[in-house]
Amino acid sequence: MFNNDKKGYMTLPVESGHEELVLDLYKKWNADALRDSDGTTMSRELENLGSEVYSTICVVRAQQDFADAHPEYLHRKYLMSHPKTATEKKLTINLLDGYSKDKYEVDTNSDPKLWFEVRNRTNSSIVNIANWEIDTEKGVAIINNAIPYNEYTVSFLARQVWDSVSMYNHLTNGWTGRKIKSLDPYHKECREYLVSWFKKWIIEHPKTTVVRFTTFAFNFVIDSGENNQDIYRDWLGYGETVSPEALIDFEKKYGYKMTPEDFVDNGYYNATYKNPSKKYLDWMDFIRDFVVGFSSELVEIAHKAGKRAAMFQGDHWIGTEPFSKKYEQIGIDINIGAVEDGVALRRLSDSPGEMIREARFYPYFFPDVFKEGNNPEGGSMDNWVKIRRALLRSNIHRIGYGGYLSLANKFPNFIEHVSDLSSQFNLYLENTKGTKSKTVGRKVAILNSWGSLRSWLQNAVKDQRFHIPSRPDIMEFVGSNPMECLSGLPFDIEFISFDDILSNGINSDIGVIINMGDSMTSWTGHEQWGNPEVISTLREFVSNGGGFLGIGEPSSYLKDGRFFQLGDILGLEKETGLTMGRVAMPLKIDESHILYQSLTGLEDFGKDQDVYPIDEKISILKSNGQQINLCVNSYGTGRSSYISNLPFTLENSRFLENLILWLNKSDSKLTPYLSDNPYVDVAFYPETSMLALVNSTNKEQSVKIYTERDGYLKRTIKAYSWDWEKV
Amino acid sequence: MFNNDKKGYMTLPVESGHEELVLDLYKKWNADALRDSDGTTMSRELENLGSEVYSTICVVRAQQDFADAHPEYLHRKYLMSHPKTATEKKLTINLLDGYSKDKYEVDTNSDPKLWFEVRNRTNSSIVNIANWEIDTEKGVAIINNAIPYNEYTVSFLARQVWDSVSMYNHLTNGWTGRKIKSLDPYHKECREYLVSWFKKWIIEHPKTTVVRFTTFAFNFVIDSGENNQDIYRDWLGYGETVSPEALIDFEKKYGYKMTPEDFVDNGYYNATYKNPSKKYLDWMDFIRDFVVGFSSELVEIAHKAGKRAAMFQGDHWIGTEPFSKKYEQIGIDINIGAVEDGVALRRLSDSPGEMIREARFYPYFFPDVFKEGNNPEGGSMDNWVKIRRALLRSNIHRIGYGGYLSLANKFPNFIEHVSDLSSQFNLYLENTKGTKSKTVGRKVAILNSWGSLRSWLQNAVKDQRFHIPSRPDIMEFVGSNPMECLSGLPFDIEFISFDDILSNGINSDIGVIINMGDSMTSWTGHEQWGNPEVISTLREFVSNGGGFLGIGEPSSYLKDGRFFQLGDILGLEKETGLTMGRVAMPLKIDESHILYQSLTGLEDFGKDQDVYPIDEKISILKSNGQQINLCVNSYGTGRSSYISNLPFTLENSRFLENLILWLNKSDSKLTPYLSDNPYVDVAFYPETSMLALVNSTNKEQSVKIYTERDGYLKRTIKAYSWDWEKV
Repeated sequence: MFNNDKKGYMTLPVESGHEELVLDLYKKWNADALRDSDGTTMSRELENLGSEVYSTICVVRAQQDFADAHPEYLHRKYLMSHPKTATEKKLTINLLDGYSKDKYEVDTNSDPKLWFEVRNRTNSSIVNIANWEIDTEKGVAIINNAIPYNEYTVSFLARQVWDSVSMYNHLTNGWTGRKIKSLDPYHKECREYLVSWFKKWIIEHPKTTVVRFTTFAFNFVIDSGENNQDIYRDWLGYGETVSPEALIDFEKKYGYKMTPEDFVDNGYYNATYKNPSKKYLDWMDFIRDFVVGFSSELVEIAHKAGKRAAMFQGDHWIGTEPFSKKYEQIGIDINIGAVEDGVALRRLSDSPGEMIREARFYPYFFPDVFKEGNNPEGGSMDNWVKIRRALLRSNIHRIGYGGYLSLANKFPNFIEHVSDLSSQFNLYLENTKGTKSKTVGRKVAILNSWGSLRSWLQNAVKDQRFHIPSRPDIMEFVGSNPMECLSGLPFDIEFISFDDILSNGINSDIGVIINMGDSMTSWTGHEQWGNPEVISTLREFVSNGGGFLGIGEPSSYLKDGRFFQLGDILGLEKETGLTMGRVAMPLKIDESHILYQSLTGLEDFGKDQDVYPIDEKISILKSNGQQINLCVNSYGTGRSSYISNLPFTLENSRFLENLILWLNKSDSKLTPYLSDNPYVDVAFYPETSMLALVNSTNKEQSVKIYTERDGYLKRTIKAYSWDWEKV
Repeated sequence: MFNNDKKGYMTLPVESGHEELVLDLYKKWNADALRDSDGTTMSRELENLGSEVYSTICVVRAQQDFADAHPEYLHRKYLMSHPKTATEKKLTINLLDGYSKDKYEVDTNSDPKLWFEVRNRTNSSIVNIANWEIDTEKGVAIINNAIPYNEYTVSFLARQVWDSVSMYNHLTNGWTGRKIKSLDPYHKECREYLVSWFKKWIIEHPKTTVVRFTTFAFNFVIDSGENNQDIYRDWLGYGETVSPEALIDFEKKYGYKMTPEDFVDNGYYNATYKNPSKKYLDWMDFIRDFVVGFSSELVEIAHKAGKRAAMFQGDHWIGTEPFSKKYEQIGIDINIGAVEDGVALRRLSDSPGEMIREARFYPYFFPDVFKEGNNPEGGSMDNWVKIRRALLRSNIHRIGYGGYLSLANKFPNFIEHVSDLSSQFNLYLENTKGTKSKTVGRKVAILNSWGSLRSWLQNAVKDQRFHIPSRPDIMEFVGSNPMECLSGLPFDIEFISFDDILSNGINSDIGVIINMGDSMTSWTGHEQWGNPEVISTLREFVSNGGGFLGIGEPSSYLKDGRFFQLGDILGLEKETGLTMGRVAMPLKIDESHILYQSLTGLEDFGKDQDVYPIDEKISILKSNGQQINLCVNSYGTGRSSYISNLPFTLENSRFLENLILWLNKSDSKLTPYLSDNPYVDVAFYPETSMLALVNSTNKEQSVKIYTERDGYLKRTIKAYSWDWEKV
């Protein structure tokens, strides 16, 4: 990929003392790049391979002595003290109560009277500045003239004295050594220091061919509690980008001030699943401008030294999300994404720009997974099954692993599994030659409040919060959503926002619009449905032949007598407690419907959503008693469907394919290159005339495929196999 | 009850042609009153019994020729036409589309430009009166200058040409004959006509001793659809009380106008489960004043003729609900309530006033229940088990049945069952002598938006909407709620409103406050929790030693970062989609808690409510995975508890007893006259020194009861038995 005379496509980590093993796996797995970390040196043999050398670097974490000397340049953020109830007129609040004392200090560099805010959270008011005093050294607020039995909070600036990633590695992976601090390059002196240090670093790393940035400026949001446990996470949150300096510049640029409340947001912290406020969107834009500038400066230094720049999507990646419009300005050559499922793959593969895309696969070779009794190849195969589905629909160029190869090597089955996976990837590159497989019908658009900026993000729904996690510190949303089903389907998929629709209408190449997720979230749109133009635009689209698919609480926003604003199109309403007097009529399943006949009975429609019919002409295809799980309707010349939820399963994915074809008015029987077996995925590459057949199960499967030239092909595919043939 | 020399306490219906059977059951079941209907005559033998004679009368339904001659006096109501989407600038709406043409006509007596309203339900606006024309004769509205793909509705006055009860009897019970119309006595001429007719009726019914009104003026709300099916019901709805005359008088009295939207309410029709608006409360008051005046006039006529007045709680009872403050002014002597469970019994027994209370039991002796293969005594026993529990805590004086005795007589087991039930009731009257049983601890107050006005109403919660009904025309809420559990517990119970709290604070005799039901309803209070004073008053109450019990979505109203406004007291928050980033920690059950140890494992906590802990110190007693079903907490010197739901079961009822004792800081072990067996209820009557023991199961049960004088009593009670003993 890097050079025509090299055959490999995989990046592997080097490991001191295990050079021979690295070399062995390098060859076995078809690697062409080695990744070092500061401190690891390469043996001569490895150097002689002529491989690409990725050097990992996180500039803002690289200079700890400077960080120690400059607490005023550390990352800061607004935290809301945990609500405390006054029982008398005087109330004392310890700002950091409930928060990690190892991670946070109250920012002593910012004047509280200028930058902090005290709120009464019972009567929704700001407490007059004269009624409180804050001692930042002691971290204590005293509120006078409090109203008894009202709750108070202080929005204060906290200084982060322990980087979230360093903290994670200490606490979860047992790392010892220095507790890393992150520097905020927004401060001019700090930025200059870091840039000049990086220039030196470049010179000191002549063998590096790829600078792998992890990442640039600001970490995503992880808040830590009293016992250093995670208490809140937002992988896309801009909460850790705050400094008085940036706030002052923001006001100069936008003509208005961001307040502490704009950040703490009643304790919801502008989570990505919330509709963003106009002010917060401005802040994000402001931060993005800064980060793009800073990143570009670093990338340019690397380029000038003749090195490529790679960015790992994660850690300090706030402001450099690849789907943002400014991302391409940075000049990144290689996008690296951690990929555990189809959605993550599409997040890597589908962002704009012509850069190389490299998937870093799980598991990481760390002792949490690679310990006696574990079966790492099992978990890897679960991921690979999902990833492969998405690979059939989109393109990446490279793969890679991280961690300690010596650990992985203790699991021979795993080594064999990766060898097989690598061969499959090799064939994929050869047979596709970077071209795309054929898609069916008009585009499928996913409509939410973010649009393309937040493409291919898992939007967890409420019932997923209550999954029992296998690890106490994580919620397991990944790979369990309708989005995962979609990631492997033969459709052109794009993400559109309500603003897109309002500005440009609905493009004529869009056949089906999907709105899915929980009410009150950015995923369904909430207040966006309060805009009559949004509603009428969607109605017109469907009435004129479009398809609308709602999953969960689509178009939900209580107004004008409807909770589902497109309840007329869906023929449904949700019981919110406001319509209990409407008489429930027994449901009848429409067994004659073509989609009913495509159901296997193994589909999983998740938790009931308290949805009932308000239009007699809808076809109900699945219900749990009186609870509707799946139904379809017609509206004008268009079609609609509602699904209570659609967790990822192979059966659900195939059903979704059939449903979208139906919504798009395509006949699956006459559409070439579709699989008739839910456990087999099929893709046809017109430019190479290759047909791919993937068996996602541990059993042999048969499939019948209609082709344009040869009529029906019948094929048998071995367990987990990925077959190719010329057609 | 009526005369000291008479022993009976039951009202039975007479039936022409079956006089002997009536006489036989009259004696067997200890009746003392006979109920006739117009048209039925009594045999001499029945007349000679000297029984009370109840004559059923519904004045507003009694004069059909007058009704036919005066369509302008028929009952009217505001209906909202079903929303219709414009696809071009002109939109035609058939007002009655989707509504029963047998029941409704568009009111041709009211000028649409004065009394109707056209609304755009997409942009929430009123359509200018110049942009529409309505032909009331044809029932058609034409809207001009419509916005394409916006929805429109017309709020119009409909005239009811078929009374809801008559309709029900035709359609469900196969009655034939005249389709009855109801007259609206709000019209002066109509009222005068009805009153003078009633005066004549009184003279023509000399043998009548009790005038049984069914009821007075306005029926509760039943809306009927295209196929005459029920589409909306509100047993307490004031929707059918509207006339232009009343609207004009209202404006004169209150100084402002009720608009059509005040009635149709976005299609929610001010259902009882919704928080009432101030305007609607005024309207209810206005109607109540009128109905109380009209009813008093009729009752006075009856009294002057030496007859008593009975009111059946149902049918045309709007404005005469016994818990309203003005009810006692009417002068009713006997309250009759249809009683199918403990809640209905308490609704009858607990309203203020010294009148006689008579429970009309189910089943009605009609062919829907009394048909071959059915087991009417089974259903009756299910009811009786619930009713008996409530009888132990409250007093009524009489019981009764309705329907055709000849039908019941075909089921000898049922006849025996009623004989047994009647004997039990007889003993109950003898042993209690109208006194009340002992209650435990401080009062339990149920807090909702209605307070005492809507005491003892089942507040259905969302999951109950989705029960599959055994009859397509009804939703089965009855007897399935926490309220039903409460109806049989040894506590003083009262219903309080948020206004009560705001005006008078929380009375010191209240030990525990319960808030229960769905969010957005009048049962939990919704916007009421937006008032900081409500929140701080409750906090102060608990902090100073009170108990708070929340069931379902207590104190729910999204503001200031909380969905549960008393989330600090409960230590909980609900996942609404707004807090998915908060990290879920695995739940731990507090098995050492005294309440955990009182659980039998058979309790049923209903559907999960997406509730998670936000306070580490709560004790979780039951969860479904990560979903909390039951937990308790302390707050100041008080206690709190949350339950996801608590359908009526015997185990749930006993658990609720234990929980309330705990919240009230009573020790159940040292409290006398409590049962230690969930299937046995115990009540002690201090004034008669009688102890009642009720076995609610079909198996023999043993029980141990702590008494003040004799220490522990151990007793065995036969299946379904109700034992009494002097202690």
